[in-house]
Amino acid sequence: MLGQVVNTHLGYFSEKLLPLGLRIARQATVPDGETIREAILESFQRSDVVLVTGGLGPTSDDVTRDIVSELFNAPLEFQEKVWEKIQAYFMNRKIQVPEIARVQAKVPRGANYFVNQNGTAPGLHLEKNGKHVFCLPGPPRELQPMFEENIFPILKSLAKTKPIYHEVFRVAGIGEAFVQEKIEASLRKLGEMEIGYCARPREVDLRIITSSQEILRKAEKLVRETFGQAIYATGSETMEEVVVKLATKLGKTLATAESCTGGMIANRITNVSGASAVLNRGWVTYSNQAKIDDLGVSPATLKKHGAVSAEVAQEMALGALEHSDAGIAVATTGIAGPTGGTPQKPVGLIFFGIAVNDKGDIRSDVFERNLVRQREPFKLMASQIALDLIRLELLRIES
Amino acid sequence: MLGQVVNTHLGYFSEKLLPLGLRIARQATVPDGETIREAILESFQRSDVVLVTGGLGPTSDDVTRDIVSELFNAPLEFQEKVWEKIQAYFMNRKIQVPEIARVQAKVPRGANYFVNQNGTAPGLHLEKNGKHVFCLPGPPRELQPMFEENIFPILKSLAKTKPIYHEVFRVAGIGEAFVQEKIEASLRKLGEMEIGYCARPREVDLRIITSSQEILRKAEKLVRETFGQAIYATGSETMEEVVVKLATKLGKTLATAESCTGGMIANRITNVSGASAVLNRGWVTYSNQAKIDDLGVSPATLKKHGAVSAEVAQEMALGALEHSDAGIAVATTGIAGPTGGTPQKPVGLIFFGIAVNDKGDIRSDVFERNLVRQREPFKLMASQIALDLIRLELLRIES
Repeated sequence: MLGQVVNTHLGYFSEKLLPLGLRIARQATVPDGETIREAILESFQRSDVVLVTGGLGPTSDDVTRDIVSELFNAPLEFQEKVWEKIQAYFMNRKIQVPEIARVQAKVPRGANYFVNQNGTAPGLHLEKNGKHVFCLPGPPRELQPMFEENIFPILKSLAKTKPIYHEVFRVAGIGEAFVQEKIEASLRKLGEMEIGYCARPREVDLRIITSSQEILRKAEKLVRETFGQAIYATGSETMEEVVVKLATKLGKTLATAESCTGGMIANRITNVSGASAVLNRGWVTYSNQAKIDDLGVSPATLKKHGAVSAEVAQEMALGALEHSDAGIAVATTGIAGPTGGTPQKPVGLIFFGIAVNDKGDIRSDVFERNLVRQREPFKLMASQIALDLIRLELLRIES
Repeated sequence: MLGQVVNTHLGYFSEKLLPLGLRIARQATVPDGETIREAILESFQRSDVVLVTGGLGPTSDDVTRDIVSELFNAPLEFQEKVWEKIQAYFMNRKIQVPEIARVQAKVPRGANYFVNQNGTAPGLHLEKNGKHVFCLPGPPRELQPMFEENIFPILKSLAKTKPIYHEVFRVAGIGEAFVQEKIEASLRKLGEMEIGYCARPREVDLRIITSSQEILRKAEKLVRETFGQAIYATGSETMEEVVVKLATKLGKTLATAESCTGGMIANRITNVSGASAVLNRGWVTYSNQAKIDDLGVSPATLKKHGAVSAEVAQEMALGALEHSDAGIAVATTGIAGPTGGTPQKPVGLIFFGIAVNDKGDIRSDVFERNLVRQREPFKLMASQIALDLIRLELLRIES
């Protein structure tokens, strides 16, 4: 409630629960303390299941454990087994066990508890008269594995709703209005469905929700015919996951030569498990001298066209191919801003280079774009386009 | 409510309102439609001011305008002046004015309205019996300027609360439990204050809120004496911002040699405006061959100790210094997982190398850590530690 942490739990839970036909009726954020009790009681008036996140830590402002214990009339009991797990967590990390962590080993009498594989606070599940409360630790890396392993199966068994058929198609490089114009009227003719759009930098999610598996099948066929290769993934798969998967399948390796994206392309690729088989190496050639030293960009080209130019982007991509063992290299050079723009080369201008070694035959291409004038969105969009260029090259090789 | 968009409004409003002594009692997210009415009515039971975001668009699921019009018994009236502004918005962008946007020119009778400088939907302000509702457009780039220009001044004049003095101390490398153990009892002796903790990977925010400027001053002195250089920032400044600012001030340049962090260190540095004066270059030497080619790591060292070793981390850092014009180089090599671990070198193991050119005198150091076993949190923690190592070197140079 003080503005330091962004809540990503709502989105996470919604996506996990939708396939069970479960919708979240309301999400509330409340301050630490007694208002948690009030919020749980209000939620029970609307819903049978309440998910509570956070407030299970060892410090004095962590009161969720006490509040559910009171609400369910289940006194807290120290659980030796939980305490052993908590101690092991610290000892495995060669950290001294803090005495105040003992409070996290207290469990309401009769409650289910779930050991936290990635932290100390165990999860809790209490039930009375058909009303369930699940308490989860706040950090996503602790919450998500616990939800998937322990809580999702319980909710699945509790759900009395009809299953829902849904799919998300992730479309790259086309605007939201254009996606809607191209597809919505034809989709509506197939039968009853919910259609949703969500625009993100340089991509749109098209979401279809229906109670009929047959309608979903027909919708998918239509969407694929309409957008073809622009659909880079379904569900929540990311562009970098698609690139790593496809490159692995084709036995192709990658190199990145980044100026304005500053390492974001390599960072996104290496977020994917298995990236080490795919990413040969990357350079962040932020300075002109680095472009010359590491990628062999010609000082004459830099002088004549400037660092932000089609010529330099192309030399960077070709140099990355030459100075690595990779089969495909991508390069970026642009003006991320907020300063450094000129009337001829405004903030947001970027050049992409791509170079491919196709069985000894080297080809390269350059693309120019004008993106947003805000630094982080600029980098994100640019890395998205660069990854999509790699993906399209991989598809060309595959076909 | 379907999980595609993350809500950043709560954090934004909280930060803006806290200095006025205004606290957000509750934040709720509800589905489009009638539940908005219910949520506003419930909020009025707790609070005098309700901020409503979103649902002011032109499509059929945008019902906020209708709901507040009914709740305040203020029929919607078409405002020619608002419609002119909306038309101008489209025409300035050379977009045809869509007829459905006319609905956005309707304003509840007697309501204040605020022209949207970055979109079409105007903001609204209605009041009855001391209860205020403010309706704002959903997109942050539309909402934030409108809030600052139009709504904040009204809230400031409405606030009958005393001003609040607060500070956030960002502490690196110490766990939440230890921060509390070290400081809380002594802080409490200084006078009445709220103390809050927020743990993030490898760091803790310690927040102090008090109604006395004098108590805050004493608290800050105590916190600084207790944690010293471990406090890397106050407020919401990030580690990378601190590093770029400090390096700029000292005229020092940086190089990054990343294996397991895969570009994240360089990416974080280049998220900061002005990074081009600081980051000389970076390498993502994911393959052994890249470590040999680009950083001059010895094949013998790689063979004898393995890529994930103190020796390789040190050679990477020294090589980065040698092959760049930077004054400080940081290197990472580790096992981000989920696969690739062995009993001797488990997933989560990482070595950091740091090398400094101090007026021609080269020194280097190596650190070993065991981090989490999940890939993205591992990378985030590792990049945080690496940036902190740079920061500590910069502080050493400064002193």
